Amino acid sequence: MKALVFQEPGRTTWKDVPDPGIGDASDVIVRVDAVTICGTDLHIVKGDVPEVAPGRVLGHEAVGTVVEAGGDVRTVRPGDRVLVSCISACGRCRFCREARYGQCRGGGGWVLGHTIDGTQAEYVRVPFADLSVYPLPNAVDSVDAVLLADIFPTAYEVGVRNGGVSPGDTVVVVGAGPIGLAAVATSRLYSPERVIAVDLADARLEAARSLGAEATVRADEEPQQLVADLTDGLGADVVMEAVGVPETFETCTRMVRPGGRVANIGVHGKPATLHLEDLWIRDITVTTGLVDTSSTPMLLRMLANGRLPSAELVTHRFELEQMEEAYDVFSRATDTGALKVALHAPR
Amino acid sequence: MKALVFQEPGRTTWKDVPDPGIGDASDVIVRVDAVTICGTDLHIVKGDVPEVAPGRVLGHEAVGTVVEAGGDVRTVRPGDRVLVSCISACGRCRFCREARYGQCRGGGGWVLGHTIDGTQAEYVRVPFADLSVYPLPNAVDSVDAVLLADIFPTAYEVGVRNGGVSPGDTVVVVGAGPIGLAAVATSRLYSPERVIAVDLADARLEAARSLGAEATVRADEEPQQLVADLTDGLGADVVMEAVGVPETFETCTRMVRPGGRVANIGVHGKPATLHLEDLWIRDITVTTGLVDTSSTPMLLRMLANGRLPSAELVTHRFELEQMEEAYDVFSRATDTGALKVALHAPR
Amino acid sequence: MKALVFQEPGRTTWKDVPDPGIGDASDVIVRVDAVTICGTDLHIVKGDVPEVAPGRVLGHEAVGTVVEAGGDVRTVRPGDRVLVSCISACGRCRFCREARYGQCRGGGGWVLGHTIDGTQAEYVRVPFADLSVYPLPNAVDSVDAVLLADIFPTAYEVGVRNGGVSPGDTVVVVGAGPIGLAAVATSRLYSPERVIAVDLADARLEAARSLGAEATVRADEEPQQLVADLTDGLGADVVMEAVGVPETFETCTRMVRPGGRVANIGVHGKPATLHLEDLWIRDITVTTGLVDTSSTPMLLRMLANGRLPSAELVTHRFELEQMEEAYDVFSRATDTGALKVALHAPR
Amino acid sequence: MKALVFQEPGRTTWKDVPDPGIGDASDVIVRVDAVTICGTDLHIVKGDVPEVAPGRVLGHEAVGTVVEAGGDVRTVRPGDRVLVSCISACGRCRFCREARYGQCRGGGGWVLGHTIDGTQAEYVRVPFADLSVYPLPNAVDSVDAVLLADIFPTAYEVGVRNGGVSPGDTVVVVGAGPIGLAAVATSRLYSPERVIAVDLADARLEAARSLGAEATVRADEEPQQLVADLTDGLGADVVMEAVGVPETFETCTRMVRPGGRVANIGVHGKPATLHLEDLWIRDITVTTGLVDTSSTPMLLRMLANGRLPSAELVTHRFELEQMEEAYDVFSRATDTGALKVALHAPR
Repeated sequence: MKALVFQEPGRTTWKDVPDPGIGDASDVIVRVDAVTICGTDLHIVKGDVPEVAPGRVLGHEAVGTVVEAGGDVRTVRPGDRVLVSCISACGRCRFCREARYGQCRGGGGWVLGHTIDGTQAEYVRVPFADLSVYPLPNAVDSVDAVLLADIFPTAYEVGVRNGGVSPGDTVVVVGAGPIGLAAVATSRLYSPERVIAVDLADARLEAARSLGAEATVRADEEPQQLVADLTDGLGADVVMEAVGVPETFETCTRMVRPGGRVANIGVHGKPATLHLEDLWIRDITVTTGLVDTSSTPMLLRMLANGRLPSAELVTHRFELEQMEEAYDVFSRATDTGALKVALHAPR
Repeated sequence: MKALVFQEPGRTTWKDVPDPGIGDASDVIVRVDAVTICGTDLHIVKGDVPEVAPGRVLGHEAVGTVVEAGGDVRTVRPGDRVLVSCISACGRCRFCREARYGQCRGGGGWVLGHTIDGTQAEYVRVPFADLSVYPLPNAVDSVDAVLLADIFPTAYEVGVRNGGVSPGDTVVVVGAGPIGLAAVATSRLYSPERVIAVDLADARLEAARSLGAEATVRADEEPQQLVADLTDGLGADVVMEAVGVPETFETCTRMVRPGGRVANIGVHGKPATLHLEDLWIRDITVTTGLVDTSSTPMLLRMLANGRLPSAELVTHRFELEQMEEAYDVFSRATDTGALKVALHAPR
Repeated sequence: MKALVFQEPGRTTWKDVPDPGIGDASDVIVRVDAVTICGTDLHIVKGDVPEVAPGRVLGHEAVGTVVEAGGDVRTVRPGDRVLVSCISACGRCRFCREARYGQCRGGGGWVLGHTIDGTQAEYVRVPFADLSVYPLPNAVDSVDAVLLADIFPTAYEVGVRNGGVSPGDTVVVVGAGPIGLAAVATSRLYSPERVIAVDLADARLEAARSLGAEATVRADEEPQQLVADLTDGLGADVVMEAVGVPETFETCTRMVRPGGRVANIGVHGKPATLHLEDLWIRDITVTTGLVDTSSTPMLLRMLANGRLPSAELVTHRFELEQMEEAYDVFSRATDTGALKVALHAPR
Repeated sequence: MKALVFQEPGRTTWKDVPDPGIGDASDVIVRVDAVTICGTDLHIVKGDVPEVAPGRVLGHEAVGTVVEAGGDVRTVRPGDRVLVSCISACGRCRFCREARYGQCRGGGGWVLGHTIDGTQAEYVRVPFADLSVYPLPNAVDSVDAVLLADIFPTAYEVGVRNGGVSPGDTVVVVGAGPIGLAAVATSRLYSPERVIAVDLADARLEAARSLGAEATVRADEEPQQLVADLTDGLGADVVMEAVGVPETFETCTRMVRPGGRVANIGVHGKPATLHLEDLWIRDITVTTGLVDTSSTPMLLRMLANGRLPSAELVTHRFELEQMEEAYDVFSRATDTGALKVALHAPR
């Protein structure tokens, strides 16, 4: 089959590799119908994620069709159309027993396109299939659904749920890339009074407005002041960091009200400064997290009911074999305006 | 009356000042029976808390007897023995309505010995008395009870409750001063599997053991390793910072397990480094907080039932007029072995 | 002034009574701008609520203007337009300290039109004003706002919050009178997958649909079967009882899924049967509750933002002096189609 | 092997049956080292549980040694000493994903000694072994541990956790049989102010006191009055029903304070009356539940640390082959004073 292979830092190739096969009784083999590219994939390509060895097939998000299932698989069978989650779950370790699948210590967690071959390929082997793939309702489009492999549950669980968004809240989302936009959209599920999106790119702020942000502000135009103005100087109930750099994290901690919550969603490569000299007295909660995908079944139902604006985040579509071009477009998002790019198998 | 007056950085005097009087219908005047000194008072004396103006009577913890009550006071009357809480509460603002009295925006919060005259005196005026003083059961000793004005509710609310201590947990308390020791003691209310105390002073570690810590370790003898050894390398469920310096906070974040909680109790004067490059993926919750004293009635019942080892924390006792000597002993804790010093009115 | 006076069971009169005056420093006198009638008022008129003595002015919901304030009132002043909540709160007792104002033991709770004179009058004295009236934004219409004195917070707190409605849930509301309809509307704040309304009256089911119920079913047409069909036989996540009779409560407990919640909102006069022989093993939670009105400030913000369909529930409007006619229309709701009737002062 | 076989209502026999074998790759075969008898077993023998077919081996609680494991079992291996939980869990269905194993819809739940052969035998086949058996620390005695197969997690999860026992609470446990006594003991993990045990048998009340109940009262000596006296007339924070008859459930609802919780643990065969005419206004929460055994790992650690008084509940010990005699002693508990009877394999 064809797959996108990480060769060495800076170089990937769409090329022939052996087809995957069932290795464990809990595995399924899925023929990929739709796949997308994550910001994390760009980091891998740059060489920032040393666990990813040369030769690895990348990708951790897909929709596809089960073509083979190991003997221990009970919940799906060949022919089923499924969402392949970015997180695999052994189902047996202490973390899986708490539905904290992202922290799985039994061989799951984030493994696809990381420590085992991933989804940017014609076929993918998914371990622990019963807890790692999700049957798809017929009504759901594959490209729409593929955003539920990672960014929607990440935004919802790590941003909205960790942040404790509640009816009437003022919510700030710093960073209006794909994850931040999904956080804007899923915050709405709890009827906040207002969602304020912060970004440097006007196009992304416009996207945030179309997804339901009541207010937007450029990161270089004193977002902290806007938040103060809208909240009688008190600060926001919930602030989400969806960028992943120290400065935006620090901004977040300055925009939250006493008793409020800062939910970090961003992937960070450097430490940030936590201004405990101000914050120790302010009853702040800061959370971090990797997605567990425990919300995936609920989000799939919401998508099927037309309540998740997944399609609006997909700005570019390609055929699977255009993988390298898709990477190019996605990696030059500032120029191309790309939010999410979707690739699909020929129909 | 006599009172301890902050004169200027580095200088306080026990001297005559005018008696306090009822200023608002919600005030009470309390004759002080017992009072203690807080680490924060030492910071004030040094000049670290600029809101404290010269001439201010210090102190925010007391037990005493109501001698006069404003017309609007409904829950106590002259003659009642009461605990004077470190936190006053207007009862009307949005934070008081959530029992988050420490964040009161209606004139309460931490005001005694801070923005109004405090308790290290023969008499003290307490505003918003109905929500700021607590009637004491007869059975409770005044010196025992005075530790419930600040350190016990602080340790319990900001450490144990924010940390979410649960049966079976591994809990680490970094810093075994008075607050840390109160955190050890109140952690026990939730039956953790073990409490591990960390400090530089052997005497304080011994005190921690006598208050129920199953394990203790010197801060300079690799506490992180001990925690790892006791938890199969996973880390502690809950870690509390009870020192207030950047290094100990960072140590705390390295000792917590994935999915665990770091509850900051320490009063910080400098920013700390938050290692988001490690923590972003680990599902960590970090909390800060000022005490609300919402737990005070419950803690008073526990004390009356002999379940709070308050007396064990009081190492030195003085008469009220020995205030300056008491400050001296308390400020040289390393030499004197002082944990809490208590001062009482002549009987 | 004129007021509606309970004379004896079966008889009320709109008649002259003395104007109310400040009795306690925490009181305000409010000139009534808008008022409504509650189903409970009909019970009182019938004589079902023996605590209501002859001579009592009825009514516990109003919007008005403060005309006089006691010396201890800090949060409103004469001239302020306010919502008069059905619940008064002393702010000092153990229940008020938990924001459980409905259970106030310090002289508050439900007192207006119950144990003290109420709001169906030209003027009303409101005790404990700081915690019992709420300043109104100018943008909010008085008649719209009056529904936030009781039915919206009741439906939201006792139905939606006690029921734990969450995104993706299936919610059943049994009874589509005013409270049930408010429960349908406020359930939507948490983005359930579907709300199913059950009632005997087609007109009320139609109202439920216009307020956002995805499905409706007549109570005599096997609602339990519909719920089973829509949930793969499992039952609803949340079921709310908004009628107040034993049969509907029992129906609710048969429609809830294992692990689900039954939130009772109805006012009951008789015991119900709890089928523990079926339910003991099903992980069910049943809640009851009187409203606390702790959600009132949030609901007022939602109303000001156009997110609460309050006006849709008001089917009939009268001038204040038409009080008796309004009672007549409201008490014959089956014939008149009345949901809520609103009365307003002449403008 | 030998096993206790249900023949027909009223008749069981300890007799030869075929050895169990691995039927599914997730099964283990366990050689029974210790087993106990549950009150539910007595109901089965009487014929009250029609799903139990003649020929069924009874028993759902055991400690034993794995002798064979299916190919899909990952967490235990032959030779491991394990606790066999009363609940089996498929690990894949929506309820297992929420750790609500008692409601498993994938073939687990309570199946042992119910719909498949159970533990009162020399060997038992346990399905879904990875989530249904728990490795035992060496230090733990088999007979002590066997009480963690059912009664301790049941009392803790369905009573203490559902009841929300918190530090300082007044807790009432109605019924001081084995489950009620385990509820008394595990309530202590949260440091309530007092636990009050209610029963008709003085011997059981004495056992309750020795397990930590501060107060006890005979069920026929006005327990409601004692609770009122101890709580200023308010009622208990948490009341647990551990009997399973309508009258005791109703008593529970009369002893709970406004805002309190009634946690039903009892197995009921008849409906109870829920006095909604009193309770609708009192903010009560009533919970029911089957144990999930999600707390089993924590309880095992507590047992290993000497913090669960499991041994105190075992009043009689037998060899496995004395099964019929053990049933006789257990079924005549009033005469024999039996709490739990334990049977062990010959050593």
